[in-house]
Amino acid sequence: MEAEAEAVHEDELRDAWPVLSPRERVEGFHLLRPERARDFFATLEPPEQVGLLQALSPGERGTWLRVMAPDDAADVVQRLPPEEREDWLALLDAPSLREVRALLAYGEDAAGGLMNPRFVRVRPELRIDEALSYLRRQAREQVETVYYAYVLDAEQRLVGVVSLRQLFQATPDKVVREVMRTDLVRVREDTDQEEVGRLFGRHGLVAIPVVDGQGRMKGIVTVDDIVTVVQEEATEDIQKVGGTEALGAPYLEVGLRAMLKKRAGWLLVLFLSEMLTATAMTRYQDEIARAVVLSLFVPLIISAGGNAGSQASTLVIRALALAQVRLRDVWRVLRREIVSGLLLGAVLGAVGVTRILLWQELFHLYGEHFLKVAFTVGLSVLGVVTWGTLAGAMLPFLLRRMGFDPASASAPFVATLVDVSGLVIYFTTAEFILRGTLL
Amino acid sequence: MEAEAEAVHEDELRDAWPVLSPRERVEGFHLLRPERARDFFATLEPPEQVGLLQALSPGERGTWLRVMAPDDAADVVQRLPPEEREDWLALLDAPSLREVRALLAYGEDAAGGLMNPRFVRVRPELRIDEALSYLRRQAREQVETVYYAYVLDAEQRLVGVVSLRQLFQATPDKVVREVMRTDLVRVREDTDQEEVGRLFGRHGLVAIPVVDGQGRMKGIVTVDDIVTVVQEEATEDIQKVGGTEALGAPYLEVGLRAMLKKRAGWLLVLFLSEMLTATAMTRYQDEIARAVVLSLFVPLIISAGGNAGSQASTLVIRALALAQVRLRDVWRVLRREIVSGLLLGAVLGAVGVTRILLWQELFHLYGEHFLKVAFTVGLSVLGVVTWGTLAGAMLPFLLRRMGFDPASASAPFVATLVDVSGLVIYFTTAEFILRGTLL
Repeated sequence: MEAEAEAVHEDELRDAWPVLSPRERVEGFHLLRPERARDFFATLEPPEQVGLLQALSPGERGTWLRVMAPDDAADVVQRLPPEEREDWLALLDAPSLREVRALLAYGEDAAGGLMNPRFVRVRPELRIDEALSYLRRQAREQVETVYYAYVLDAEQRLVGVVSLRQLFQATPDKVVREVMRTDLVRVREDTDQEEVGRLFGRHGLVAIPVVDGQGRMKGIVTVDDIVTVVQEEATEDIQKVGGTEALGAPYLEVGLRAMLKKRAGWLLVLFLSEMLTATAMTRYQDEIARAVVLSLFVPLIISAGGNAGSQASTLVIRALALAQVRLRDVWRVLRREIVSGLLLGAVLGAVGVTRILLWQELFHLYGEHFLKVAFTVGLSVLGVVTWGTLAGAMLPFLLRRMGFDPASASAPFVATLVDVSGLVIYFTTAEFILRGTLL
Repeated sequence: MEAEAEAVHEDELRDAWPVLSPRERVEGFHLLRPERARDFFATLEPPEQVGLLQALSPGERGTWLRVMAPDDAADVVQRLPPEEREDWLALLDAPSLREVRALLAYGEDAAGGLMNPRFVRVRPELRIDEALSYLRRQAREQVETVYYAYVLDAEQRLVGVVSLRQLFQATPDKVVREVMRTDLVRVREDTDQEEVGRLFGRHGLVAIPVVDGQGRMKGIVTVDDIVTVVQEEATEDIQKVGGTEALGAPYLEVGLRAMLKKRAGWLLVLFLSEMLTATAMTRYQDEIARAVVLSLFVPLIISAGGNAGSQASTLVIRALALAQVRLRDVWRVLRREIVSGLLLGAVLGAVGVTRILLWQELFHLYGEHFLKVAFTVGLSVLGVVTWGTLAGAMLPFLLRRMGFDPASASAPFVATLVDVSGLVIYFTTAEFILRGTLL
């Protein structure tokens, strides 16, 4: 009964966490029994852990840092402002400090920065029964998992892996070399975490070993760490696609000032770029003065291009992120998107023409040259949608090629790009079709 | 050496897979050695597995279906057209068929649809050494994992869990009840897979047990399955945010016709909605005729609102998906976004005014009433950005509230919504400020 009541309390604290002040968080946290507190602490996201640790006394902070796995401790330290890092590191004991420092040397997004250096290693000549009793002893140590033992040669090079399950199945007098798997998936220290996430997804693994350039084993990345990584990467991509910088922390945890900084940057860039539409419109203001009817369809036409472009860029961004499409596939995607753009443009163009003819029939809004106006709009929609689709699909490739994140080809960015060119397409078409009549 | 060459071959086949025809895939697949083929098959995504199985002979198809874990087989069958499902199910042996049918009864997105019914169960009175030797025997069976044993009472209700690691550490003559954990995370059969993914991310677990309404254990969901789920959910959300229906398969795997259907639907809805801009513009065409200068800023103003709205909706969509924000937080988000919208709108508005004054100084483009025009544009930008931000932030809440997916509040959808209202805000402001001068 007591356990039940405690469990509720822990969950309630977890639920209320985002809305509590730092002091209330510390108070709530201190109300938990020690072993509950440890579980609870583990359920916090890294930014939340940093916040809690900052609010605790240095003594308590040190205790919690020391019980964390080295990769988690490194993750926390990495999220601190640079000037605070050394103070926190000073709270660690010497062996942990060495491990955490080694991990901090890796890029935050690399396999090296995710791995835990505490894994079980065995020699290939070990007998199965010896290996089993060794694993049994290791179960008491702070290793990440005892369910996989990595087989290293004398130079610490990774030569195979053996699962506890395989050891269980094997006859005790065989040696590890006879039962180990040698065709194992491994990553380099500098492998990007997105790639690591894909390998977990593709192979359904529980842990992946990390090796250095000489094939020496450095640590393991486990799948529970990667679930968080996959979520974070997707969050980053979604936020970028929506036209904002990645927040890097839960929405309600980000201060208003920080949030505005992340949003204002892109909004300003987009606003300044969009000013080109005013420039373009100025170039065509005589045409508008002569044929106000043209201005009526400006938002419709440019938004059609923007929407088609958003679709194409989003699909390509995600396909690139999941490695479903690679840089070398650019021509296949191009062919595909040209066809898509033309067909989608034709459908929307036809709908646009129908709308104008129908409204003309009903309300007589568009003057005597309504047929030419309808034709202008239809053709412009076809052109703008095709161009928007192409631009949206190619921009992520271009960004990746230049070493940027393809996700920066956000929906608003593509829409802005297409708005300006869409105006040129529209008014050029209009000049061509309406010259001598309306223009 | 031979193993090396094979490995390359396997990877090459994996890389080339998307561009191969069904016949080439079968040929490549048949070139693999049996044990390699099994590994390779496991690395294929479920839609790819379906494609391959469809291209194989019924005999081979049956062989592969029978070696799959029941949850994976159910996943494959679920992706078939309804009329083909029975033929495939007929290829299974009786016990597997029973398991697969039970799994097919669950919703595709529910924990029940993800779980594997083959797990290790022990009784609470079992001695540790008995439990260990039982697990050892189970290692040869087709259970999902032997690293966790679930403790069930006589009514099959889940009362605890014990890890192999804990059994290793315990003294052999204790009983399971004394070492098991009772405060374990569990889910119901109908728990949504997004929630299951969040639990894995939050608690760093390897497996989560699934129970029915009476607390009876039905199966386990393992974290390797959830990595794929998390990826797929994120892909769906990103694609929806970009204004397209979720593709449901890798970009290059989707046929052109299916792809166009997924894209054309939303594009048409957006295009038809955007036609309201033409209606709105028609209402204001006298104003435009009198003051063409007003039309120059139409794209700039409405896109500023659309971009601000895309940002807000995307941030809220993702925060809702990750349960960082819940329905009851709507007022906190509203307050926050009103402030954000006003501040962002003020910045952009000021930039807009500066731009007009500067261009007027340089090129004398905007006539004698340029100050009033600048003021109109600045105020409209402030209004449109504030409104766009609010609408973008609230729409996902509204959709969730009405039982729809918040991710449908896509960037293009919000932009379209804001375009129409943005025109009304702009021309109303203009009428108010310019009456008696330009209008």
